[in-house]
Order: sequence, then structure tokens, then C-alpha cells
Amino acid sequence: MKRITNQINTNDTDPASLSRRVGEVVTLCGVIYKVRLMSGFAFVILKTRTQLLQCVCDLPTENLREGAWVRLTGKVLAEPRSKTGYEVRIERIEALSQPAEEPPVVVNNKEMNASLSTLLDYRPLTLRNEKETAIFRVQSELCKGIRRFLDGQGFVEIHSPKIVGGNAEGGANVFGLDYFGKPAFLAQSPQFYKQTMVGVFERVYEIAPVFRAEKHHTARHINEYTGVDLEMGFIHSFEELMALETAMLGSVFEHLKASCEKELALWKMELPVVDSIPAIPFEEAKEWVAREYGRPITDVYDFEPEEERLLGELVKRETGSEFVFVTHYKTAKRPFYTMETPGNPEVTESFDLLFRGMEITTGGQRIHDYHAQVAKMERLGMEVTAFEGYLMAHKYGLPPHGGLGIGLERLTARLLGLDNLRRAVLFPRDTERLTP
Amino acid sequence: MKRITNQINTNDTDPASLSRRVGEVVTLCGVIYKVRLMSGFAFVILKTRTQLLQCVCDLPTENLREGAWVRLTGKVLAEPRSKTGYEVRIERIEALSQPAEEPPVVVNNKEMNASLSTLLDYRPLTLRNEKETAIFRVQSELCKGIRRFLDGQGFVEIHSPKIVGGNAEGGANVFGLDYFGKPAFLAQSPQFYKQTMVGVFERVYEIAPVFRAEKHHTARHINEYTGVDLEMGFIHSFEELMALETAMLGSVFEHLKASCEKELALWKMELPVVDSIPAIPFEEAKEWVAREYGRPITDVYDFEPEEERLLGELVKRETGSEFVFVTHYKTAKRPFYTMETPGNPEVTESFDLLFRGMEITTGGQRIHDYHAQVAKMERLGMEVTAFEGYLMAHKYGLPPHGGLGIGLERLTARLLGLDNLRRAVLFPRDTERLTP
Repeated sequence: MKRITNQINTNDTDPASLSRRVGEVVTLCGVIYKVRLMSGFAFVILKTRTQLLQCVCDLPTENLREGAWVRLTGKVLAEPRSKTGYEVRIERIEALSQPAEEPPVVVNNKEMNASLSTLLDYRPLTLRNEKETAIFRVQSELCKGIRRFLDGQGFVEIHSPKIVGGNAEGGANVFGLDYFGKPAFLAQSPQFYKQTMVGVFERVYEIAPVFRAEKHHTARHINEYTGVDLEMGFIHSFEELMALETAMLGSVFEHLKASCEKELALWKMELPVVDSIPAIPFEEAKEWVAREYGRPITDVYDFEPEEERLLGELVKRETGSEFVFVTHYKTAKRPFYTMETPGNPEVTESFDLLFRGMEITTGGQRIHDYHAQVAKMERLGMEVTAFEGYLMAHKYGLPPHGGLGIGLERLTARLLGLDNLRRAVLFPRDTERLTP
Repeated sequence: MKRITNQINTNDTDPASLSRRVGEVVTLCGVIYKVRLMSGFAFVILKTRTQLLQCVCDLPTENLREGAWVRLTGKVLAEPRSKTGYEVRIERIEALSQPAEEPPVVVNNKEMNASLSTLLDYRPLTLRNEKETAIFRVQSELCKGIRRFLDGQGFVEIHSPKIVGGNAEGGANVFGLDYFGKPAFLAQSPQFYKQTMVGVFERVYEIAPVFRAEKHHTARHINEYTGVDLEMGFIHSFEELMALETAMLGSVFEHLKASCEKELALWKMELPVVDSIPAIPFEEAKEWVAREYGRPITDVYDFEPEEERLLGELVKRETGSEFVFVTHYKTAKRPFYTMETPGNPEVTESFDLLFRGMEITTGGQRIHDYHAQVAKMERLGMEVTAFEGYLMAHKYGLPPHGGLGIGLERLTARLLGLDNLRRAVLFPRDTERLTP
């Protein structure tokens, strides 16, 4: 019998190591991003899996088609005029795969000069643009940074079901499906399951898809997104959750600084400083914005998007912070599991985090006592028996706990200054888009 | 304005640090797992977020109800008779939350003495059993180990959509849903998207839910599971994928050895050694099993579960390996994107990995050339235009590539010797189960 060893193929040089290989001959793989023909030679910009790389080629150029996937051998030479400080002089180049058609949209310029719908219709192609690619490298490093921080704090990663029986969280915005003849729904959040798992691991998190059947078609809505959800037992107060998030963001941005310098530079974005974040109660925030901008308050329960933007502006002006926690949302507008503020049951131990004028997080302390939770559900006229599985966690005991959920795409979009949330999703789903 | 700092609450001692704190007074949180009343004192077994901990209490015991969530202060004392080598002498204990009802099933014994349906019906409770908890700590560390390995190999984590238009992979076993009046489906795998992303990052992975509407109701089938999917560009042959998986499993088991000693001991499982893995072509494997066990071959395209089990047994006997790659599955039984073997188009450059007699991985090299892929689809009578979004990646060029998918629950179950796949899922979904 043949045996497969654990020897990973290392014929090709790790493109991330090139800066240490000046003077060496290397073998590299990638796609030809751009060719500039000069007299007697060509500049070939190779897109490797980590970066754009300037190569110089004086071989025949008929195979050097933009979009061809190649393997090349060449010498790494110091070259101060190249962005990376070096270039590769090609000695041999082999095209392994050629595109079948010319791209209908130019992807190898600095900026994609295309409408949003073109960007999304041709996603498999447009994502190859260096700057578009950078968005998703940042997103991947965001996740890595979040995991590292949470792992370090003793959180355990869980995988909760996305197909759920019963109408999760009681909302209207759910996608229904037929599950072997029974009605089922796509989970709007892992809320019930992460709370349940506090009873098992005390501290849990999940980074996974969530589904919202909201009919809004705006720059800030998508119908499937990636939720970064955590839940934590033994909190003394919901302020600890905000402190945890503050520390997490600080740690994650440190990680990005180290891992995504190039990508952040492409987007010309500065990482925000987050050693502390201001917090303001919802009602105060509403009144402040109304007063400062002479806007009448029309919705006493929630922010309008414009109010969020203005609040962000005000807080930045007053404190220098690009983040602001808004706390104590009204009980009437928070889900049934939210803990009310002791001494003021009109408001809750809850918060949102706004970043550069947009909500990126919702969190709060939850009701952990079974009787208190059931009583509240009855008061709200909810059918308690429909939540039997969820309430089992409370019935057999849960510690005081709370948690939060971050929209990964919103965080990415705010961080890079993307004007539409869809740009921070590889293959976005909105009310009108189901492909590619 | 108030300011939230990044100071995480550290009133409580990290339970993982106790072995270094003998002689110190610590504050700990957890749930009372078991109380054994002795004469004049009580043994209190506290379940902290990392372990069971023996405590000694000579305070009044009326609050020490099993299932109560407590915060306690006490001194760490060396105690050779305790499993951990130490115990905590309780000086103060406060119950923060009490269960509302006695559990209907005993969860604080060594083994859950309960039927599978009880285990699953009372999941929020039964997961609190130490040994059940251990399954999911191992699963979480499996994911951590996989990510670490892949991150180290330059793979980028992606998030692909789970709601898809068109019938992904052309299979019948899909869940349909109504998407704002349009028909949509739940993704059976991230196959198309991970291949597409090879055109962007060359090496990508995703650990995310996948959905299969298979009507099988067996110990090895579930309808929602966690897929560990990776895809890699610039492979020379599909053997490189097997080498990568061999290296990955070795690395992941090293990680488990370091992180899950306690949990593996609870399940009395030895980690397999994987410095190399035998590989055998499908047809040879079929014939070998038929010959050795005198079994007639009834299905020439696939293994029966019993054949998988027997093949595992044979390979173990002949080579000592608990893993075996089966290669070159028949073209007729592999998806349309699978590359055929040069010189023998009846079989494919594909493989499965069996672990302790069960398939845990499917992988292979894919067709990367647009014209070759379209021609094959036409030969198979497929409606090529329905795959336009997917084929865009090929059309504008993809390098030679391949990948694999691992069922996280299958890997977990095989590793711990679980007799039913459902036991490796927090909240399983099968043809009859949609709750809790």
C-alpha cells in the first residue's frame, strides 16, 4: 500500500518571506495582475497570495497575458523604486492556466472604477482587485484577532444550530423553511443557544452566519451576515461586558496593526485608539443630539440612522473617541430576555456600541432567574411553552450573565470607510440579490 | 460622560491557574456539581469553567444545593488524594442563582446513564455532565488546532453565503426556502465559493454550518453539521491535498494532547499517531474487503458502511494505521467539478479519508479550465447557464487547485469513540429532531 507522508509540498517559496531573500533564486506562484511592456523588457506585476510583486522580464512575452496563472523562477533583487523594496528578475516562467475570456470590467487598477451593482454582479472577478482583496484579508484578521482575545479570556467556541424550531426571539423577520414537513426557521441569532451554553462553559462565543428577513433595502442592511456573538457568566453588571468589548477592540486593532499594515494603507485608514470608550444613556444621547442640531425627537425608542451619525460626530468632537456606548435602552424596545435596570424598570441593562456613527454591537445583561423570566414573558403575553427548550437552561439554573453581538461586516465596513455594507461581504444577500 | 475602560473584571481567580496557587486565598465561581455530606463538613465539587474542583466546607450547608451557581472564597491546599492534587477550603460562599426545579435526570455522575433521546431532549441540562462537556471542549480545541495549522500555511478564512440561488451542486438533498418571493436553498457545502475564492487568495478555508436534507435516519447522519472546508491553489497533484491533511491531523492532535489531556482521559481515548497514512485505490479496497471477508460486491460505486468498517479493520491490522485514504473514486459517482485521472477517465483524482472505519473527509482535485468544465457539464446534460456565477471564476482564470471537506462532528465522534454522531453535536438536527 502506498503511504502519504505529512511532507507538505514546498517547491514554491512562501511569498511572505521574500524580503528576507534578496539575492536568492526563488520559485513563485500567482496570477499576472498587470503587464507593462517597456522597450526590450516588461514589468510583470504578479499577484501572489500575500501581495502584489514587481517582476522584470526580458523573455518573450506572448504567454504573459493578464489573468494567466503562472509559476516562475527568478532572482530577488533589491530595488528601492519598487514598493516592496525589491523586485524579482524572471528567469523562467510557465503559464499553468489561462483565462477563457477578457474581463468585462477592469480589475487591475488601483481603484475599481465600477458601480456597486457591477462590483457585485461580477464578484468572482472584482474581488481580485488588490484593494477589494484587502477588505477580506482585514476581515479574516479581524476574526483571528477576536478569537485570540476570547480564547485568552477562557471563552469556548461553540457551534449552534441555524435551523431552529419555533420562532426564535419571537421576531417577524425570519426566513421560514419546510423541515421534513414541519415548519422551521433560520436562526436570527445564536442568542438562546449561547445563553444555554453559559450553563455549560460559562464563557462562550460563536462566529457564524445569522439570517434576517428584513425588507429594508439600504446601504446598511443585508439579509445574511456574520455574527460575532459572545456570552459570559458571573458578570456583576453589564458594564463588564462593555469593558470586555473595549479591551477586545483594543487587542484586535493591535493585531490588525501587526498583520494588515499594507491593507490598511491601501484604504488609507487609521486604526482608532480604544483605551477607553465614552458611554451615555440612550435618553440623554437623544436629547443631546436634538439640542445640538435642533432636531425634534420623533422616535423615542430608537435612533434614526442620521441621529446615530450625528451622535458619533458630537462624541468625536467632545471626547476624541470614534466609539460610543449608548446604554439603558427602553425596556419596551429590548427583547424579553433583557434585564431591567434595578430601580427603573422602564430601561434596561443594555447597550449598543456605535463606531463612526453606526451601530456595530448590541449587548446587555440577561434575566437569569427562571421565575423572573417566565413572569416577564407572561406579562408580555408570550406563549411560554413555545420556549420550553430555551427556558430549560434557566429552570435548572444559570448564573448572572450577559453578552453581546457584533456585526462582522459592519465592523469591517466602518473600519475601512466603506460606504455600503455589501462591500464588506464576499457574496452579499439582500432583498434583491441571491447570486452569485 | 462616563468612560468605560478596558479593565476586565479580575475579582475572580482564573480556575486554570489554581495549581500554581497552593497556599493562596482565591475567589472562584462555578456551579455546585455535587455535595457529599460528611460528619461535620461537606465535600463540595465545584464545576468551574475549566474543571471539576474538590472543595471542603465546614460552614452551614443549607445553601449548598446541587445546581446552585456560587462565588466562593477559600484557601488552596495541597491534597494528594484529590484528582487535581489540591483542594480548596471554603471560607465564604455565596449562592448567586438557584435552580427552579430538581433535574429530571441525574447529570452529576461520571457517566450519563440515559438513553440517547433523553440525552438530547434535555440537552441544556445533560451537556452539564462533566463527560458530555468534555466532548465540546475537545471539539472547540479541534477547531483551534485546525485554524492554527491553516493560518500557519497561509490559508485565509472566508465567510461564504448559506442562502444560495440555484440548486447548489445539483443535488436533490437540499432544503428550499422562500427568499422574498424567489426560490432559494441552504448551501450543502461552500464548494463553489471556496473554489471561487482560490482566484482571490489561492488558499482559503471556512468552518461553518452546512445543510443536507437527506432522509436517512441513522447513527451517522445529521441534517445540519459543521463543515471544515479548505481549498488550495497551485497543487501539482491531489496527493498534495492528502499530504496537507496528514500534516494537519498530526498538528491538530499535538494541539489536543497539550490542551485536552483531562478530557481525553475522561473518554479513555488515545490520540492516533499520524506521521503517514496509507492510501489505496477505491476498486482495490473494495476487492480486498470482498476477498478477505468473503463478501460479494453489490455496489460498485460506493462503500457500504459495513465495508468501511471492515476496510478500517484490515488497514489497522496490516499497517497499524487508524486512518486510510481511499483514492480514485469512479467518475460516475463524483461531482461534475472533479478532475478525471489523466489516462483513465473512468476514475477521478479524488479521495476520502476513513478514520476508525468511517468516512470523515472527501476531497480531490477540481477542473480549473473553463472550456473543460463546460464541456463536461454539457456531456452530463447539465444546464450550464444555471451555474453562471460559479463558472465566472473559471472563465476569468483559476489555477490548478483542489480541496477537501471534513465533517467536524464525525472527526469528534471517531476521536472520542461516540457511537452516535448526534452526541458530537450540541443541538443536533435530524429528520425527527428540531429542538431544543
